[in-house]
Amino acid sequence: MIIVLKPKVTRSQVEAVIREVRKLGYKPHPIIGVERTVVAAIGDERAHHTLETLTSMPGVDQVMPVQRRYKLVSRESRLGGTKGSLITVNGHVFGGPKFQVIAGPCSVESEKQILETARAVQKAGATFLRGGAFKPRTSPYEFQGLKEEGLRLLARAREETGLGMVTEVLSEGDVGLVAEYADILQIGARNAQNFALLIAAAQTGKPILLKRGMNMKIEEWFLSAEYILSHGNPNVILCERGIRTFETLTRNTLDLGAVALAKMETHLPVIVDPSQGAGRTDLVGALCKASPAVGADGLLVEVHPNPKEALSDGAQQMTLQQFSRMMTELKPFIRAANRR
Amino acid sequence: MIIVLKPKVTRSQVEAVIREVRKLGYKPHPIIGVERTVVAAIGDERAHHTLETLTSMPGVDQVMPVQRRYKLVSRESRLGGTKGSLITVNGHVFGGPKFQVIAGPCSVESEKQILETARAVQKAGATFLRGGAFKPRTSPYEFQGLKEEGLRLLARAREETGLGMVTEVLSEGDVGLVAEYADILQIGARNAQNFALLIAAAQTGKPILLKRGMNMKIEEWFLSAEYILSHGNPNVILCERGIRTFETLTRNTLDLGAVALAKMETHLPVIVDPSQGAGRTDLVGALCKASPAVGADGLLVEVHPNPKEALSDGAQQMTLQQFSRMMTELKPFIRAANRR
Amino acid sequence: MIIVLKPKVTRSQVEAVIREVRKLGYKPHPIIGVERTVVAAIGDERAHHTLETLTSMPGVDQVMPVQRRYKLVSRESRLGGTKGSLITVNGHVFGGPKFQVIAGPCSVESEKQILETARAVQKAGATFLRGGAFKPRTSPYEFQGLKEEGLRLLARAREETGLGMVTEVLSEGDVGLVAEYADILQIGARNAQNFALLIAAAQTGKPILLKRGMNMKIEEWFLSAEYILSHGNPNVILCERGIRTFETLTRNTLDLGAVALAKMETHLPVIVDPSQGAGRTDLVGALCKASPAVGADGLLVEVHPNPKEALSDGAQQMTLQQFSRMMTELKPFIRAANRR
Amino acid sequence: MIIVLKPKVTRSQVEAVIREVRKLGYKPHPIIGVERTVVAAIGDERAHHTLETLTSMPGVDQVMPVQRRYKLVSRESRLGGTKGSLITVNGHVFGGPKFQVIAGPCSVESEKQILETARAVQKAGATFLRGGAFKPRTSPYEFQGLKEEGLRLLARAREETGLGMVTEVLSEGDVGLVAEYADILQIGARNAQNFALLIAAAQTGKPILLKRGMNMKIEEWFLSAEYILSHGNPNVILCERGIRTFETLTRNTLDLGAVALAKMETHLPVIVDPSQGAGRTDLVGALCKASPAVGADGLLVEVHPNPKEALSDGAQQMTLQQFSRMMTELKPFIRAANRR
Repeated sequence: MIIVLKPKVTRSQVEAVIREVRKLGYKPHPIIGVERTVVAAIGDERAHHTLETLTSMPGVDQVMPVQRRYKLVSRESRLGGTKGSLITVNGHVFGGPKFQVIAGPCSVESEKQILETARAVQKAGATFLRGGAFKPRTSPYEFQGLKEEGLRLLARAREETGLGMVTEVLSEGDVGLVAEYADILQIGARNAQNFALLIAAAQTGKPILLKRGMNMKIEEWFLSAEYILSHGNPNVILCERGIRTFETLTRNTLDLGAVALAKMETHLPVIVDPSQGAGRTDLVGALCKASPAVGADGLLVEVHPNPKEALSDGAQQMTLQQFSRMMTELKPFIRAANRR
Repeated sequence: MIIVLKPKVTRSQVEAVIREVRKLGYKPHPIIGVERTVVAAIGDERAHHTLETLTSMPGVDQVMPVQRRYKLVSRESRLGGTKGSLITVNGHVFGGPKFQVIAGPCSVESEKQILETARAVQKAGATFLRGGAFKPRTSPYEFQGLKEEGLRLLARAREETGLGMVTEVLSEGDVGLVAEYADILQIGARNAQNFALLIAAAQTGKPILLKRGMNMKIEEWFLSAEYILSHGNPNVILCERGIRTFETLTRNTLDLGAVALAKMETHLPVIVDPSQGAGRTDLVGALCKASPAVGADGLLVEVHPNPKEALSDGAQQMTLQQFSRMMTELKPFIRAANRR
Repeated sequence: MIIVLKPKVTRSQVEAVIREVRKLGYKPHPIIGVERTVVAAIGDERAHHTLETLTSMPGVDQVMPVQRRYKLVSRESRLGGTKGSLITVNGHVFGGPKFQVIAGPCSVESEKQILETARAVQKAGATFLRGGAFKPRTSPYEFQGLKEEGLRLLARAREETGLGMVTEVLSEGDVGLVAEYADILQIGARNAQNFALLIAAAQTGKPILLKRGMNMKIEEWFLSAEYILSHGNPNVILCERGIRTFETLTRNTLDLGAVALAKMETHLPVIVDPSQGAGRTDLVGALCKASPAVGADGLLVEVHPNPKEALSDGAQQMTLQQFSRMMTELKPFIRAANRR
Repeated sequence: MIIVLKPKVTRSQVEAVIREVRKLGYKPHPIIGVERTVVAAIGDERAHHTLETLTSMPGVDQVMPVQRRYKLVSRESRLGGTKGSLITVNGHVFGGPKFQVIAGPCSVESEKQILETARAVQKAGATFLRGGAFKPRTSPYEFQGLKEEGLRLLARAREETGLGMVTEVLSEGDVGLVAEYADILQIGARNAQNFALLIAAAQTGKPILLKRGMNMKIEEWFLSAEYILSHGNPNVILCERGIRTFETLTRNTLDLGAVALAKMETHLPVIVDPSQGAGRTDLVGALCKASPAVGADGLLVEVHPNPKEALSDGAQQMTLQQFSRMMTELKPFIRAANRR
């Protein structure tokens, strides 16, 4: 930690800071600058007590950490070897040369809907089926999902098509149930700092698809992943899905720089969700095609046989035809990124 | 709903929209404008299927809701009478003429710490004690709270001082336990859209202090409260605690306009948390004093006997002396707002 | 500056950084930590070359400044004495015990409109009249102001009422003209980093009301003021007018914490513009009343005799009656802040 | 416009709204809904007085425009034909099949620096040279550019290499001078709503590279372009350069969805500036490669022979070698987008 003192700090204030640094388990190292004095506090910032509390001392202006707060997810941890982690689910590998596409409706609505979608996305080249059985909805009056019936329908579609299956879990109480059905548990943006849920999901041992919260700094996203790894589950797939900004023509602002950064800083696979990212179908194709270039390992795309009657998020779901066309257009961009 | 069609829409596209509107249970009402055609869809937007899905139709440019999405929390619902809801906890009324102050440390750390704080804040005029027993921490390596032991210490401090007790619940699994001890259950900013937790907390029947999520639009905050009311619990106290913006000198940006708006739009009591809002002690006093003017019914303030050694958020906790001085300075502002 | 090196930095990388630090005119001071090495670079960060460029060196992780970038606006500069600067305009003092209220329409539209407004706001207690003669409008098709005719009408209203006069200058080319008429030159939010305009306005010697840009960090706002002071004009009044956030129910989010911070960090008077801050009349009164508590020295309020026919921003202008009522309600809050 | 009335509006309030709508030149069309009454106001929203002022009337809840506010930049205007505008500068076409790359240092610092850069970027495939002669700097103490000397050095580099030349103009007073030298005038992010500068630049007739302001909604960006077109200059190249968000690991958040949207909504060429967008060299390459996929017509990239001693923004400038490698890696992505 670097503790920056105020411009007109007194000698006794400096000494008080030094004493406190030592008391909290660090080795203090004062440096007298031209306008400022700083105290470097040497010690492991994760192991010891944080020093940010020192900003409450009279002479202290700010405290600046110099160390990464995450460890296990860090690329330096070498947990994923030199090339990053490979996470194999249902015979498909996330993080390797193959670019994985997860597709399906926002919500599972009926057997017909999910089977029709599953067949179409498989034919177009997707390897995983997504679909919400438990839906987090802003309003209590909106469709909340088919719940266990939705899981059963997803399982049926998996059985028929052989696609892997990804679905969101909303509640600690449902983790066991969802884990019985799903190949990958999705933690949604609104729950990305629901630490109780992260831990419960981690403990199932299932691969976790962790969305970035819409208000989450990149470092916080990594720290949420760190919760999962530090609870014994190394199989985390990060998913960038756009952040909330002042823009109103799009639902969120997709942060593709964060994907490049996550690939550089962590050893985890990273995928992109342009459906949530843009919130409007007419932009989804372009953002899908941009994803391989920033190092993404795959996509999560919302697809519905009849978006105009979808029970949720119709504005951002592609039709089966749109999805199929996008998958064709996507290929040269995947090849350009030396993926397949 | 108002469905705005694209500038060069064809007649058959207009007809398709009209048919779909009717099919989804609304009465369509087309209006031909100078540059645009719009279709007004008459019907209850909450009861029927949302029409936002229509943006996936070829001729549709945008769909604009015209109705509030919340009902029970709305001032128009008259659930709080003409003057707004009064929520009585432990003999103290939120929403009435008395301005309530909830104070205490970010985390409960020891018996000595919590008792010393409880006595001091009571003496200074606080009516409730706050303290975190279960702590939501960005990093898994940070102090996670004393858990049940923390609850016991809070109860002991309540017993001694007679203060009411507010504490956060993080996990559906802990709702029962926390409700045994607490007078008010706090839902934190990170869980403000953890709908499973909102419902579990609602079902205890306990008053709920609902913080605004750091990324939450005001309407979404009201809708989270609507989850609680629609699950049978009318005792919600809203708490503005700052939103996340681009500013970096403060931890969050306290949105006092949102407090005025919440008082106008809902019948619920609203309090302000300037400690989280600013994230730095030197601004907390000023923001406390501004709160009565915007119609706030009270404050939630972080106070610690020794912030520089606090186990969490030391930078934003007032000392006992700072709190006591602030309470004195606060009085004329409370009176100016015709409160006491 | 503190230069934080990467975790696995080599010895020769450290040496290269040290050489570069020395070359750029600083004295390097390396500190070997547990996980990280940092190099403290001692020197005046404003006088010398910035070191942020060092992040382009192989071993460097980040570069952290420790010094304030502003000097003249800083309270430590003592340019405003121990109590802060007093700026006297037209016999009224900004920064002293008197709370100043500037009021008037968004745009000057006619002689009748501006005279009627001037008389009413003066009667209600305002000391300055505002009104836009040159209007910055998002769209080229919107009303752009009466230009010099608007200035003449403002001058006539001043003559009749004795109110001081504040008006915005949009263009370097108009600075001379506007300065002939106005008592205070306003720099609007969109021009708060239009450095050419800041310098031109500074050189008139007139007091400058500097709005915070809607996207401006507090430090950047101070630095824009520093441009004016460093070009020889010490008479800057800062004006907080809300920042752009994700919220959509209000036009901006008024940042009252920034006002408290500006009073603490700088010696300049600070006023609040709740009309722009909220963008809706029904919140303006509450935010006006909150302003004295955070240390504001005054208000800038939009008032119009007939907002529903205003040529700009009708949604946020108070009627004459609303303004007069607000001024009455404001008084106890001004007194509570020990102002008059 | 759609005027949404409040839930419990009275008959006379509705009538007052209808009268006012008519008075302001629109044809009113009331529709009685289940919970709400709305009044559709038929008329050209650009030609007539805006109706947003009606929100100041007692019965009005909100006013929603249904029409685009921009006209000339709109793809529907057909000003760019069916395929969008082609802007030819110095023999190179923006908006056509060729993907244009503009490269060069943040600031022009010396003859050696600019010539070395110009030769290297040309060799790597760039068609335009950029370089700041007038620099907008947050602090008055930072390097403000070589001014006219910088323009002369850029012209010399152009002469030698045949590259086109792009440079920023900061001040209305310098527009004439900069236009004498530059092939394209750049309007920077901080001046994107400096309407006086936009108009002055438009009137030179030179092509304008218009950056999106860091706080600018997409619609506002289009409206700033509309200022230029409506002042007689159709040669606008839009440039997305990242928006300001809460993220701190990157300087801005590059909004590639906005590029796709700009290509869809307007007929103007659109390029991407990933150097400003990310603010850190290690992400620039990935974002360059993502740009062709979203429909960008080119790139603006900061390149410097020795970033660690750059006089501005060293953290985000590529070295000549990094740029050359990026250009090679970029090619397959350009081809994947059917560009060359």
